[in-house]
Amino acid sequence: MNGLVGVLGGMGPLATLDFFQKMIAATPAQCDQEHVPVIISSIPQIPDRTQAYLGQGPSPLPALVECGQRLITAGAELIVIPCNTAHLWFADIEAALQIPMLHIADAALEQVKAPAKQTPAVGLLATQATIESGLYTNRAQETGHPVQWLLPTTQEMETLVMPGIRAVKAGNLILGQDLLAAAGRALELRGATALIMGCTEIPLVLPNSGLEIALIDATDALARGAVAWSTARRGR
Amino acid sequence: MNGLVGVLGGMGPLATLDFFQKMIAATPAQCDQEHVPVIISSIPQIPDRTQAYLGQGPSPLPALVECGQRLITAGAELIVIPCNTAHLWFADIEAALQIPMLHIADAALEQVKAPAKQTPAVGLLATQATIESGLYTNRAQETGHPVQWLLPTTQEMETLVMPGIRAVKAGNLILGQDLLAAAGRALELRGATALIMGCTEIPLVLPNSGLEIALIDATDALARGAVAWSTARRGR
Repeated sequence: MNGLVGVLGGMGPLATLDFFQKMIAATPAQCDQEHVPVIISSIPQIPDRTQAYLGQGPSPLPALVECGQRLITAGAELIVIPCNTAHLWFADIEAALQIPMLHIADAALEQVKAPAKQTPAVGLLATQATIESGLYTNRAQETGHPVQWLLPTTQEMETLVMPGIRAVKAGNLILGQDLLAAAGRALELRGATALIMGCTEIPLVLPNSGLEIALIDATDALARGAVAWSTARRGR
Repeated sequence: MNGLVGVLGGMGPLATLDFFQKMIAATPAQCDQEHVPVIISSIPQIPDRTQAYLGQGPSPLPALVECGQRLITAGAELIVIPCNTAHLWFADIEAALQIPMLHIADAALEQVKAPAKQTPAVGLLATQATIESGLYTNRAQETGHPVQWLLPTTQEMETLVMPGIRAVKAGNLILGQDLLAAAGRALELRGATALIMGCTEIPLVLPNSGLEIALIDATDALARGAVAWSTARRGR
């Protein structure tokens, strides 16, 4: 199918749902037939990405590649992954699948606005694995996005960010919102002028948390990228 | 993949999103890995079902079968279709795909509660094709669900129901809600004690419309059926 977007999701299912919703919202369409064709794998039995990075669990790579192959078999021409941490295996997945892919950090970094003649001070909320692997920070350097990063402290990661993400995955959205908003507020107090929501669970709860700092939604950025890719591919 | 549910969607994408959300909500899960594995085809370039039924457009059957085959190729072991009108081709799809399927009308009819010793008076809101083909009314008879049906008048179909469904498909949720609530109110005034929302666009807007009559959500009923099927299949 021309322009069929493959969504390698399920990490978790609510984040995949949010990504799908953002793709639909980003598409100007007056009837069903004008929407972007999508095929979504939400097979959540992929081993935990953060645990694997910490050496505490099996690698998710074989399951990620298998899901990607399911999508390609079904006709997908592009793969996007609405899970930041899974991007630690982006290069390996790309090498295994040999199909165009969009990188979620690239999509998010394009949304960072720099004040005139200044390097923007950007807070990053993400899983321990995403932060410690330098998924955003290294990628920004490699792709020429100068950023002054502000990261949560080890204690904030342990008491706010990771418990907040796990709460969202378990459906406890109010608890998750409280914890993640506290982590965001701490980064704002230390000078961040924008926050990248660099884990797909975070935009499920942070936008309505009362935080006034600019929020950069990596999920939304990737969804817009996928819609633009499909629209161009279908020549619309 | 054991228990992989294939969702033949895209009719429209918002209804597919709603179905996916209802599957997640119907699953008790504490972490990603406890959720139901799903693969979703949201390829909305399937010809319009109502127009085809009225002889005003091409049959959607070849596209429906093709999407079903994509899902089976990707490993789906069950097919569900979150679009009522597409169920006019249910038997043909089942014959072509040769894989277990759940029927949305069966799922909805199981939710109809009969008052003691009475035949329940049920209003049906659905597309012209769903209503005129007897998708619900014949199926109720065939499967032994005695119901006293109340259907919208021809004028209500032309001025409220079909324009309401089209408004939802185009993203005009407020207009869609107004039109569909008016159609529901008319059925209630004529004696309906419950309303089947027999088009997947309708539960996107009707539950918050202020109607006090009992609403039967066919999308939700099908989602619960799919979760139960996968859970049993995976032996959880």
